[in-house]
Amino acid sequence: MSDGTDATSLRVDGDRLLERLEALAAIGPITGPDGARGSSRLALTDEDRDGRDLVVTWMRDLGLDVAIDEIGNVVGTRAGTDPAAAPVMTGSHIDTVRSGGRYDGNLGVLAGLEVVETLERHAVQTRHPLAVAFFTNEEGARFQPDMLGSLVYAGGLALEDALDVTAIDGATLGAELRRIGYAGPVPCPAARAPHAFVELHIEQGPVLEAAAIGIGAVTGVQGISWQELTIDGQANHAGTTPMTMRHDAGLVAGQIAAFVRQLTGELGGHQVGTVGRMDLHPNLVNVVASRATMTVDLRNTDEAVLQEAEARLRARASELAAAEGVQVASRVLARFEPVSFDPLVVDLVEATARRLGHTTMRLPAGAGHDAQMLARLCPAGMIFTPSAGGVSHNPAEHTAPADLAAGADVLLQVLLALAQVA
Amino acid sequence: MSDGTDATSLRVDGDRLLERLEALAAIGPITGPDGARGSSRLALTDEDRDGRDLVVTWMRDLGLDVAIDEIGNVVGTRAGTDPAAAPVMTGSHIDTVRSGGRYDGNLGVLAGLEVVETLERHAVQTRHPLAVAFFTNEEGARFQPDMLGSLVYAGGLALEDALDVTAIDGATLGAELRRIGYAGPVPCPAARAPHAFVELHIEQGPVLEAAAIGIGAVTGVQGISWQELTIDGQANHAGTTPMTMRHDAGLVAGQIAAFVRQLTGELGGHQVGTVGRMDLHPNLVNVVASRATMTVDLRNTDEAVLQEAEARLRARASELAAAEGVQVASRVLARFEPVSFDPLVVDLVEATARRLGHTTMRLPAGAGHDAQMLARLCPAGMIFTPSAGGVSHNPAEHTAPADLAAGADVLLQVLLALAQVA
Repeated sequence: MSDGTDATSLRVDGDRLLERLEALAAIGPITGPDGARGSSRLALTDEDRDGRDLVVTWMRDLGLDVAIDEIGNVVGTRAGTDPAAAPVMTGSHIDTVRSGGRYDGNLGVLAGLEVVETLERHAVQTRHPLAVAFFTNEEGARFQPDMLGSLVYAGGLALEDALDVTAIDGATLGAELRRIGYAGPVPCPAARAPHAFVELHIEQGPVLEAAAIGIGAVTGVQGISWQELTIDGQANHAGTTPMTMRHDAGLVAGQIAAFVRQLTGELGGHQVGTVGRMDLHPNLVNVVASRATMTVDLRNTDEAVLQEAEARLRARASELAAAEGVQVASRVLARFEPVSFDPLVVDLVEATARRLGHTTMRLPAGAGHDAQMLARLCPAGMIFTPSAGGVSHNPAEHTAPADLAAGADVLLQVLLALAQVA
Repeated sequence: MSDGTDATSLRVDGDRLLERLEALAAIGPITGPDGARGSSRLALTDEDRDGRDLVVTWMRDLGLDVAIDEIGNVVGTRAGTDPAAAPVMTGSHIDTVRSGGRYDGNLGVLAGLEVVETLERHAVQTRHPLAVAFFTNEEGARFQPDMLGSLVYAGGLALEDALDVTAIDGATLGAELRRIGYAGPVPCPAARAPHAFVELHIEQGPVLEAAAIGIGAVTGVQGISWQELTIDGQANHAGTTPMTMRHDAGLVAGQIAAFVRQLTGELGGHQVGTVGRMDLHPNLVNVVASRATMTVDLRNTDEAVLQEAEARLRARASELAAAEGVQVASRVLARFEPVSFDPLVVDLVEATARRLGHTTMRLPAGAGHDAQMLARLCPAGMIFTPSAGGVSHNPAEHTAPADLAAGADVLLQVLLALAQVA
């Protein structure tokens, strides 16, 4: 340690972190119904470019070596003392949904810069290089799929296919990358895997706040099963058709929605299930619905239990359909297996939070994150900070300043432990 | 009997009835997806006027005294032998829904003309006059409420209010009546109640066909309770929000839909219940619904049971809402008490059908009919003929020619019994 500080006692500057968050949020500014200030920086738009330019400027000001790869991922690297050591990486994304908040993604990137600045100010060297990344199109709000940049980085999607993706507004991803100047020269997928990857992110759910816990040690990302069910029955007059002669698609849709809730109770644990979309046809007060379409969103951290949930849903839907004399067809909208983070990283996050005096708990991530793609390449993990009211993807998204600083402190100490103070 | 025929053995000419049905159906012709030919004669449109003109021509050709009242109801009367006797009336309506069939309403009017023609051909006189009516805007597809003409005729709606009703296309009923030449001079409500009213109509439901019954003796019209329920919960992320922390409006809507079916089983008898409309918000696969609106259509021939159904629904909806932590508000969309037809008329229909060698059963009407308005004025009843597949309000609406003739034969004999052969 050049300045004599014990590295384990280093802490970030919470105000400086907040200032960077404010400055980035001011690009693509929007205001919510209640006056909350958020951001709208859809991937590869002018606003995203302006945000990228600002973060790259900060990276260069901190002396990082900035590399832009072929899919537009940006990695700023601080050298380590061992030329042979792979970098310890942190980061997240700075694109937002159309009506986004100030913290989702941004926190993980800017906390990474704050870690670097803290190390710089105290002249702390690490054996492994330290890299801060932001990945292209994490939100999936303009280009599908989401987590696209980290997916290509991890080799899960061919670069050419990713560049051909068409935006909801008709532009292609490759053309938009070139237009905003972020079609970089560095090959993607990366030639060399990081030594480890740790992402700080807001929870985007209510669990930590409800439990009054400051730091979440994320155990993994839930597997996701999205299905669309289409139920075909028969339109009939609601007054003249006896109950025993009906083939009511809407009834079966309602029964399936009720069953999905029951199923989560039967399976317990982390099983969640949601029927968020339901459309009846002809959707009239006095006509028995001839058709219902509905979605079922099932998630679990345990692939075997998720498969059991799918099987039980399939069986019950068939029973209910047979009883009513309707047909049920299903279509997979999305299916991802659960991701488990590296146990050593999860332990390290939890132990570090405790050592720093923060309350902590283990929990799975309910939404997707870049870290789950990096987990294909190297030991990976995540740190969660609380989200007020569980709200995200909304200008009202909020995490208390003390929680932001606590998350960044844990990130700092976890990265130091992984990168090894020289 | 002038021609010596025993009046009780008189039968209609089924082919002549079919010819009139064909000719009327050819006005406002439409074709269904499967090639079925139907009609579109929304009330007081040019097509309705052309249909009215045709039926009035037939009435005059049959020697009927045609009276058009202030709301556009048309009554053609054949004199009886007793100048003091009130007319026995039959009839229905000739307006259709936008995409209607050939029989709904038309059958009752044209079978009335066929009865008159049969009596004319055999020179049969009756003590009471015999009147054949068609009432304005029964369907309610262009002007609300439905059964408007017969409602005004029965004194249930003030003439002035009815004339002020605005169509879905912006025109007012009074202006449209004048435009098509059917704002008549005869005062409405009628100065004198009929002696009795009997309406022949297709069932518009599947009961007779399923039971292989030819003639339905209609006991009354179900009471109708239409409610709209609005459920307010909280939008939440489908992945990150634990099941115990949700306030899922869509779930409660589904549970209520399932309960409505359960309720009909518990109450049994003629209780029917339908959730035909359901809308979730924001209606996205991965967002717990913050709001659901749904309709509940409850019908029963017994007002006390209908009220019990409403009360049980209210209680269960409150329980389900409390369990999920959501709010439920309800709004009455429509509420009509059940109508019971005159027991003597019901008996007469049933006995006549049996005497003529037709299979018969008693059943309630699930939909509204002009006869329920006339029941406010005089003993009233209805005769149902089977509807293939229970289909109506559709070009595919179909009743076999033999069933049409059987219904008209029963109507003929019932009217003769009520009007008394002179």
